[in-house]
Amino acid sequence: MPNAKAYSAASATSPLASTTISRREPTERDVQIEILFCGICHSDLHSVRNEWSSVMPTVYPIVPGHEIVGRVTKVGSAVTNFKPGDLAGVGCLVDSDQSCPHCHENLEQLCPNQVLTYNSPDRHLGGVTYGGYSESIVVDEHFVLHVPGNLELAGVAPLLCAGITTYSPIHRWGDIKGKKVGIVGLGGLGHMGVKFAHAFGAHVVVFTTSPGKKEDALRLGADEVIISTSAEEMKKHAGSFHFILDTIAADHDINAYLGMLTHDGNLTLVGAPETPLAVSAFALLFGRRSLSGSIIGGIKETQEMLDFCGAHNITSDVEVIPIQRVNEAYERLLKSDVKYRFSIDMASLKAE
Amino acid sequence: MPNAKAYSAASATSPLASTTISRREPTERDVQIEILFCGICHSDLHSVRNEWSSVMPTVYPIVPGHEIVGRVTKVGSAVTNFKPGDLAGVGCLVDSDQSCPHCHENLEQLCPNQVLTYNSPDRHLGGVTYGGYSESIVVDEHFVLHVPGNLELAGVAPLLCAGITTYSPIHRWGDIKGKKVGIVGLGGLGHMGVKFAHAFGAHVVVFTTSPGKKEDALRLGADEVIISTSAEEMKKHAGSFHFILDTIAADHDINAYLGMLTHDGNLTLVGAPETPLAVSAFALLFGRRSLSGSIIGGIKETQEMLDFCGAHNITSDVEVIPIQRVNEAYERLLKSDVKYRFSIDMASLKAE
Repeated sequence: MPNAKAYSAASATSPLASTTISRREPTERDVQIEILFCGICHSDLHSVRNEWSSVMPTVYPIVPGHEIVGRVTKVGSAVTNFKPGDLAGVGCLVDSDQSCPHCHENLEQLCPNQVLTYNSPDRHLGGVTYGGYSESIVVDEHFVLHVPGNLELAGVAPLLCAGITTYSPIHRWGDIKGKKVGIVGLGGLGHMGVKFAHAFGAHVVVFTTSPGKKEDALRLGADEVIISTSAEEMKKHAGSFHFILDTIAADHDINAYLGMLTHDGNLTLVGAPETPLAVSAFALLFGRRSLSGSIIGGIKETQEMLDFCGAHNITSDVEVIPIQRVNEAYERLLKSDVKYRFSIDMASLKAE
Repeated sequence: MPNAKAYSAASATSPLASTTISRREPTERDVQIEILFCGICHSDLHSVRNEWSSVMPTVYPIVPGHEIVGRVTKVGSAVTNFKPGDLAGVGCLVDSDQSCPHCHENLEQLCPNQVLTYNSPDRHLGGVTYGGYSESIVVDEHFVLHVPGNLELAGVAPLLCAGITTYSPIHRWGDIKGKKVGIVGLGGLGHMGVKFAHAFGAHVVVFTTSPGKKEDALRLGADEVIISTSAEEMKKHAGSFHFILDTIAADHDINAYLGMLTHDGNLTLVGAPETPLAVSAFALLFGRRSLSGSIIGGIKETQEMLDFCGAHNITSDVEVIPIQRVNEAYERLLKSDVKYRFSIDMASLKAE
């Protein structure tokens, strides 16, 4: 089996460090990919530090990374959709049972037998799957995405998680052209939400606690910015939003945002605060509002998202770093000190 | 101005007692109704005791009652839709601005200038509106409903609030024929939810904490009953419901019920617990579930509901009481000691 350089953490309190892992030889349905860039998602940090232990405990060593873009180096004999030299993307999923009702509806993200890109049981090699902080990966063709050739690859990587996570609920909510759409929080997810809502023709309003983010929000495509700590500004917009995408992963006053919705409006959560949100039934009853959750997207929808990005020239705003600075990047992530996503240049790993 | 006998409460701690109130002479658009039955809604009790003081403080004296059925005694010169002798119903609303976007969409229940049947500013007489614990009422024609002649009137009264409150979200959720629909709680609202979901052809499952309610649930139209305190029973049905109507007005573990939903399933609240519900974002994210609220319905939809009840012979299961027992009924309501709604026979008021 071919070895691959990677970065892994040995425990919840260990830094990520250089290691060597095994990757399988491509089976007949597999695509082997040389990884060029891998985005850093907050989930990586949660998993490395075992902060989601109650939902999905981390098995160590862990190689995180599920925002992968690279180039195909080899394909199995039954692969029809990729050839060596093609650009390729891999997101949060590398397998599913492909036979359950969810898979038949192209909703692999809901498959009970899904295999996540890292920290899931590896059906081929045993142990757990290893993610994209690595020089290569081998993935079933069905879970490999085509990447439009006109996009800058460092900014493509985060589309595979932050992109589809925000595109899916915005797109699914229906025709938002000309409608008032709110984006709560302007981080890795939020800045993608602004770009997509703008591209779909919505009147985009960013809610942020940071007045300093106003200029950047407008540059990214927002039409207005509301400083959410201003009761006056909030009151002025109460009851006027058709759809709000809430990207905040920390506890926050959800009723304040539910109150921003017009009747039959929807607020969709894509961040996952650890503690339950205190939801006022009255905030939902008056106006028949709804509160939803959404999680990544299926493979078909992820491909649609990438094609949409190609057509509208959308990528994530990234700060490119060498992998040797990944631990520092994690610390900066905790302080939201990045505009808006870190993208690891894997050439730095090869050079080690 | 004609006087009318009524029952009112003088303060949050006073019992309801006999009184005389003024009703206006019908204007040209008004319908005057002799009230035959009035249902007792939990909102009546909340309002009488000023338990919703933060949302809508009670003005005393209060005459509650918004589940009104009776017979037309007089109509204004411009009234075209009713004539003396017709059966008539009045629910929670007696007026709105009829000019706002909500009213234009037949959503008077969302009109910012709506006038509730009791405890709302009275535009005709000053003071506040007086509800249905009275021998008569005068209402703008637009807010008066036609009552099918084949239904027992005592059981029709609760349709005007409990009926439309449950019919509206079940009906709006879409085609539930053959789909698994849950009803949480088997009280005044819940028992109507069972009847409607059954009439729409759903596979109806009642969630209750009381094993003693099982037989009655099946009689009302449920296909199955889940004792919600049984972890085993709950687990067996996890992830299998398309729609759940939650009628519980007290605090409860909402995540347990969200976990019952299949992907893209919806749970709609029609009860309004005073304290916020602790909602786990994970319960919404995994499965893209949604949590909504719904409040009564518009006038057009309320008429549709009554016509549907006429066609399917649906009424509320009621215990008919004379108005002299209303205070006792309130105490029993607090103990859920009624199957499933009290309906006041107004002949008892006339006889005083």
